[in-house]
Amino acid sequence: MKRKKIRIGLLGVGNVGCGVLEILENNQALIAERTGKFLVVTHAVVRNLEKARSLVSSDVVLTTDAMSVLQNPEVDVIVEVMGGEYPAFDYICEALRQGKPVVTANKEVLSKHKATFFALAKENRTDIYFEATVCGGIPLIRTMKVGFAANRINAFYGILNGTTNFILTKLEEPGSSFDAVVKEAQALGFAEADPSMDLSGLDSAYKLTILGAVAFKANVQLDDVYYEGITALESSDVAYAKELGYTIKLLGIGREVRPGKMTFKVHPTLIPEDHPLAHVRDEFNAVFIVGNAVGESMLSGRGAGGAPTGSAVVSDLMDIAFDEHPLGNKRNLESLGADIAIVPFSDTVSQFYLRLHAVDTHGALARISSVLAEHQIGISKIMQKDIVDNEAEIVLVTHLAVESTMAAAIAMLESEPAVGGISAKIRVGLDEV
Amino acid sequence: MKRKKIRIGLLGVGNVGCGVLEILENNQALIAERTGKFLVVTHAVVRNLEKARSLVSSDVVLTTDAMSVLQNPEVDVIVEVMGGEYPAFDYICEALRQGKPVVTANKEVLSKHKATFFALAKENRTDIYFEATVCGGIPLIRTMKVGFAANRINAFYGILNGTTNFILTKLEEPGSSFDAVVKEAQALGFAEADPSMDLSGLDSAYKLTILGAVAFKANVQLDDVYYEGITALESSDVAYAKELGYTIKLLGIGREVRPGKMTFKVHPTLIPEDHPLAHVRDEFNAVFIVGNAVGESMLSGRGAGGAPTGSAVVSDLMDIAFDEHPLGNKRNLESLGADIAIVPFSDTVSQFYLRLHAVDTHGALARISSVLAEHQIGISKIMQKDIVDNEAEIVLVTHLAVESTMAAAIAMLESEPAVGGISAKIRVGLDEV
Repeated sequence: MKRKKIRIGLLGVGNVGCGVLEILENNQALIAERTGKFLVVTHAVVRNLEKARSLVSSDVVLTTDAMSVLQNPEVDVIVEVMGGEYPAFDYICEALRQGKPVVTANKEVLSKHKATFFALAKENRTDIYFEATVCGGIPLIRTMKVGFAANRINAFYGILNGTTNFILTKLEEPGSSFDAVVKEAQALGFAEADPSMDLSGLDSAYKLTILGAVAFKANVQLDDVYYEGITALESSDVAYAKELGYTIKLLGIGREVRPGKMTFKVHPTLIPEDHPLAHVRDEFNAVFIVGNAVGESMLSGRGAGGAPTGSAVVSDLMDIAFDEHPLGNKRNLESLGADIAIVPFSDTVSQFYLRLHAVDTHGALARISSVLAEHQIGISKIMQKDIVDNEAEIVLVTHLAVESTMAAAIAMLESEPAVGGISAKIRVGLDEV
Repeated sequence: MKRKKIRIGLLGVGNVGCGVLEILENNQALIAERTGKFLVVTHAVVRNLEKARSLVSSDVVLTTDAMSVLQNPEVDVIVEVMGGEYPAFDYICEALRQGKPVVTANKEVLSKHKATFFALAKENRTDIYFEATVCGGIPLIRTMKVGFAANRINAFYGILNGTTNFILTKLEEPGSSFDAVVKEAQALGFAEADPSMDLSGLDSAYKLTILGAVAFKANVQLDDVYYEGITALESSDVAYAKELGYTIKLLGIGREVRPGKMTFKVHPTLIPEDHPLAHVRDEFNAVFIVGNAVGESMLSGRGAGGAPTGSAVVSDLMDIAFDEHPLGNKRNLESLGADIAIVPFSDTVSQFYLRLHAVDTHGALARISSVLAEHQIGISKIMQKDIVDNEAEIVLVTHLAVESTMAAAIAMLESEPAVGGISAKIRVGLDEV
């Protein structure tokens, strides 16, 4: 049987690009068997021809001229794994205008321009595939689009960033410190030389806009997302959380609070030990999804790295290859029709973990209780820690409180002489976040 | 825009059938929006017309005559949710012969006749969809087929049966007993009046043949599967396992031991506490998958119940609806081409947990050590429990040992007067199972 060849133009031959090339080579026979097609990279666009030559086989045409590949009628599909907003944006637009399906692993450009891409794809009867933009090897986009297609998704809670999850896991080890753990993550290749995009929560926020768009069919923008990273965390918070029966994770949360009213936020969260998200460790990612028919599900796996991300890219390529007909199908085609309103972050509700420095222990306890009571915030648990010279740390978990009310209570506590300052404020639990 | 209607013939209106009807009704607008089609049950085949009338809306044609529906040119798709081997087998064959796509939730008939169904589907240019046969709401089949399509799957380890997982979770509570917990599961609707199909491991074994077929593209039969249930377990084993740092789960395992050499088995397994499968609790299901590109992934969720299983059935229906073209695609079409050999269970390798009754404690310890040493089975951990009148329980975990060697050692131990008997033998760990 003669098999059709699908000719791929690869934009970028970095970590993910090499992962794609490797999988296409190693699993060539299996892919041809499963799809009935040969998937072959025929062209690669790079910045440095010399550096790239050793990375790709000699029958791949190497060029620095992206447009020549995008407009080449002998290239069937474009794989964009170069990253960054520009020129990736222009290249993807041009590929779609040429009617070529695009597979991308670029969360930044997709997060910012998804509405443009989806509209261009529709206009040109083609499609953009982006399984690799969120949680690498976990088939999350596909699961939300197809596996849970019959569901209205009520909420999802994701550990979307492997770097921060690795750091939080290492912080559980007694005696660890934030800075040392970040260095360890860098040495192991789990954190960039400049890890600020991960640590600040921005990386998770980008991914959240993409998941939100798929889950709720809405054009969620970065501006719609409140995000807060893990840089303010200390290892003592991780230890106290454990004592209280929780594990701290950086969660990206998308939730329909009321019909058509959404909230999107990224922040460290104390998760009860008996929740499956609490046991997602090291560099792993996971998303816990609540659907109106399927109930609670969780998917977990490696969120980054050349091979897992490459696996996601190739799964998209195979999805394109599975469809033999020229018309395409509606399985992947996105439109962002839902009319949503964002609930302001200040109106959302959480339980809170607070760590306070008490200058005068007895006085502090009394004032904390009365300030919280004045704001009608109940206390669920309270512990007093490490008293030295009548100074102590006080750790407490509140009942549910509105963000803005908690902010007001904290402003008042900050001005109390008996309370030396608020050392940590972390949200708790999944139900009302 | 005028939307096409997809007319569904529903075989069976039990728990899952009602779940399907409910989802199609509640999520009607969303499904039409996503697929561009209306999915409508137009015919339902039942055994008792009177009983069924109250369950389906009045515009559904109710009949006891399955053939009239299967052969009706005005029915586009058949959904088989009646369960059991016959007459489901005949109905599915007839539907495929008529060129109608079939969606089934029936693990027994699919496990036994998948090769026949796949061949008939191919012959008649149609397809059979079976997401709902394994782990209800978890989109497992789709993930293995499409999400991990670029991977060679090396192994998978599944908690495939919610009833037994519920029972094992409840057995962790101090003072619980196997019989009481089974009664509780029955009262809550998590176990059948006759729970033997679940408890014996047979239900998991059926599902394992289906997952094995999808993962390895091989015609795995029930005869290829070694299975052993949880009826021999005692709550003391669950407690001792915990003390040793493990949780006991009933696992279904499919693994390529060497290229082309497979093993398929279902048995209780001690899982280390730091493994994500150890934290899949209550009636939940999960499958841990190792792919050659994606690495380790886990999917978990509700494995049974009308809504989760119905969600899986409807996701298959939507998959059919997504494809607008008449030719179909290769995304779901299965063929079982792989040439596999089964490694006999007796040749597989595990660590073992043993609980032994020592009549004469000191003598028993000496004899156990020397019998195991004679068989070159190393001891990793050993504990002595509850000495009363010089009688005790001895609990130990071995190093890796071949099944047949362990069986020989146990036969020898059984005949030792100092050893009153082997009370439990449970396999340990995931790596070499």
